[in-house]
Amino acid sequence: MKLQVTQENLAKALNSVARVANTRGTLPILANVVLKTVGTRLTIAATNLDIAITHYIGSKVSDEGSITVPAKLMQDFVNTLPSGVIELHLDDYKLNIKTDQYKSVINGVSAEEFPVMPDIENGKTWNIDSALFKRGLQQVLVAASSDEARPVLTGLYLRTVDGQLILAATDSYRLAEKVLMKTKEDVDLLVPANAMQDLLRLIDDQSENIEITSDEQQVKFKVGDIELVARLIDGKYPDYQKLIPKEFKSSAVLKRSDLLNITKVSSLFARESAGSITISLDDDASKINIHSVASQLGENTASADAKITESGDITLNSRYLLDALAVMNGDEISLSFNAKLEPCVLSDTKNKDYTHVVMPLKS
Amino acid sequence: MKLQVTQENLAKALNSVARVANTRGTLPILANVVLKTVGTRLTIAATNLDIAITHYIGSKVSDEGSITVPAKLMQDFVNTLPSGVIELHLDDYKLNIKTDQYKSVINGVSAEEFPVMPDIENGKTWNIDSALFKRGLQQVLVAASSDEARPVLTGLYLRTVDGQLILAATDSYRLAEKVLMKTKEDVDLLVPANAMQDLLRLIDDQSENIEITSDEQQVKFKVGDIELVARLIDGKYPDYQKLIPKEFKSSAVLKRSDLLNITKVSSLFARESAGSITISLDDDASKINIHSVASQLGENTASADAKITESGDITLNSRYLLDALAVMNGDEISLSFNAKLEPCVLSDTKNKDYTHVVMPLKS
Repeated sequence: MKLQVTQENLAKALNSVARVANTRGTLPILANVVLKTVGTRLTIAATNLDIAITHYIGSKVSDEGSITVPAKLMQDFVNTLPSGVIELHLDDYKLNIKTDQYKSVINGVSAEEFPVMPDIENGKTWNIDSALFKRGLQQVLVAASSDEARPVLTGLYLRTVDGQLILAATDSYRLAEKVLMKTKEDVDLLVPANAMQDLLRLIDDQSENIEITSDEQQVKFKVGDIELVARLIDGKYPDYQKLIPKEFKSSAVLKRSDLLNITKVSSLFARESAGSITISLDDDASKINIHSVASQLGENTASADAKITESGDITLNSRYLLDALAVMNGDEISLSFNAKLEPCVLSDTKNKDYTHVVMPLKS
Repeated sequence: MKLQVTQENLAKALNSVARVANTRGTLPILANVVLKTVGTRLTIAATNLDIAITHYIGSKVSDEGSITVPAKLMQDFVNTLPSGVIELHLDDYKLNIKTDQYKSVINGVSAEEFPVMPDIENGKTWNIDSALFKRGLQQVLVAASSDEARPVLTGLYLRTVDGQLILAATDSYRLAEKVLMKTKEDVDLLVPANAMQDLLRLIDDQSENIEITSDEQQVKFKVGDIELVARLIDGKYPDYQKLIPKEFKSSAVLKRSDLLNITKVSSLFARESAGSITISLDDDASKINIHSVASQLGENTASADAKITESGDITLNSRYLLDALAVMNGDEISLSFNAKLEPCVLSDTKNKDYTHVVMPLKS
C-alpha cells in the first residue's frame, strides 16, 4: 500500500471512526482502525461488532493495499501533524507515515485478521433531511434507557404510523416522541440508542441528506462520505402511545426559560432526595411554584408567572424535567397532568410535533 | 443579620472563596463559608486551615450579624439566581434568601464555631504589579512538586538577590526561575504552591497591584477586595542556582512553536517509555531531531530547522519539555546542554528573565 492523503481529510476520518474502536474488549484487534484502498479512495473503518463506521476519503493511490493500526495512536498522531500532504507507505506490516517534518513507523496487524465489517446486501433504501433527523435524535435520545436488562428500551423506535414517520424513546420513567415527517415508506426499526449517539456526531451542517438502508438484522446510515452500520435490536417495543394522556385536568402555560430557571434552582435542594421536587399550579395567583426540601441543608420555593387551568400538585424528578426542557424548542411550553400519580406531559404550545412525558414520583 | 447584596457581587465572592472550603476534612464546618457584616460591607470567607480567602463586597446592611452555611450549596444556588438584588435575613440559624422569584432557607451553623481566620498583626508590606506577578506564577508553578514527602519543594521560593526579586520552583527533576523586578525590599518567603494556584485564580485583569504582607509564619496577598492568607513553609530551600550551568557545549536556537510541535508528536510514541524522547542536535544539517520508540506500537522521528552550535544528544521526559515550552514567552528559544547526563537549559533568546532547567533521563 502506498498513497498520499491530506492531513485534514485523514484526521477528519480518524476522528469520526476511532471512537468505536475499543481498547478494553476481548478482541485486541478491535482497538485498531482498518486502512484500505478502494480504487482512488482510502477507507478508514472501525467496529465494536455492534456498530461499524466507515469513512471514505479521496487519496492519490500508487499501490493498493490494506492494514490495521492502533486507533488511538493513529488518531492522536495524525491530529498532531501540521496540515498538508501525508504519505502512507506500507512495508510488510509496518505503516510508514511521512511528511517533510516527520517520519514515523506504526506497527500494524494484517487486515485479514480484522472481523468482516457487517454490510447490507439487498435492503430497502430511503432518505431523510439530515438537519431534521439530527434535531429529532437530539430531542429523543435523552429518554432512552442505558440499562441492558431491558434491551428494547435501549433503542430508539423509528416507524411510520398513518403515513407519518415517528421517532420515540422511553426508559419507563420518561418518554419522548417526535413526529418527523409525512412519508410513504413503511418503516419499523428499533435502533440502538448508542449507535444514534455516534451518528449524531457524524452529522455536520454540510450534510444535506441521510440515506437509510435496512434489512431484517441491520440498518445503515449514509451521511456524506461516512457510513454507519448498526445491528437492529430485536424484540417488541412497548405500546407507549396509550400511556400519553390526551386530555388534562390541570395545566400551566409559561415561558420555557422561566420553568428551566426555577427548576434548576429547586434541583439544588433536591440532591439528597433523588431530585424530588413538588410542582404546584396556583390558579388564583396565576403562578407555578416549585418546592424542594433538603432536610439537613434547608429548603427552597421558586415561582414563576403562568397561565393556569385548575390548581394541582405533582412531584417529579427534577433531572428528568431539566433534561426535557433542555431539548425542547419553543419559547412557550405547557406542563399538564390529571392527578398526582399520573403522567406529566410537556409540549410546545405552538408546535405540537414533540411530546415529552415524565412519570411522577410518589410523595 | 439582615442585608441586601447584588447577585453579581455575591456570586463573584462565593466563586472566589468557596473553592478552599473542604467537604472531605475532619472538621465538617470547614465545608462552610462564613458570611459576616463589617460596617457597610459583607465579608465572605473560607479556610482549609492552610489557606484562608476573604472577599469583601458592598451591601446595604440593616442588621449586623454573622453565620456559616454550606459553601457548595450556597455557591451553586447564588450562581443559578438571576442577576438583581438578593435579600439575606438571618432568623435564628436559618439564613433566608429572597429575590422576587425565589424564597429559600439554608440551615447555617454559628460563626462562633468556625475556626479563627489567621491574620497578620504587624508584618511588613510591599507591592508588586499584578500582571507581572501573575505571569511569574504561571511560568514557575509548573516546576513545583506536589510530593508532601519533601515539603520545601512544594513551595515557591520568592526572594531578593542583589536587589532583584526572584521567583523559583523545583521538584528536583526540573527547575523554573523568573526574575521579576528590581526591588529595595529584602524578601525571603517560601510560599505553598497550591496557595499560589488559588491566588492565580483571584488575579483578574482589573487588579493593578498586589499588596504582600508577611511575618515569620504567614503571608497575606491583597488583590482588590480579596485577601488570601497562607501559612509559610518552613525549612531551607535548596541552593538551586548552583545547578544552573552558565556555559554550554551544545545548543540549538529555533522557533518555540517548531520545538513544541515536534515534541508533541514525539511524545505520542513515548507513552510507554515514561515520556522518554531523545533529542539530537545535528550541526551539519542544521537540524534538531527528536526520536521516540514505543516497542509495541512503532517509532517516530521528527525534525525541525535550528541554528546548532556543536552536535550532541540528550534524553528528556517529553512531558517536562512540553510543560516548559507551554509557559515560555518568546518566538525564538534556545535549548542548551553540556553532556548527555547534565542539565538541559531552556530560555528565550531575546528576554533572559526566565530560565527553565530539565534534568536528563539516563538512556
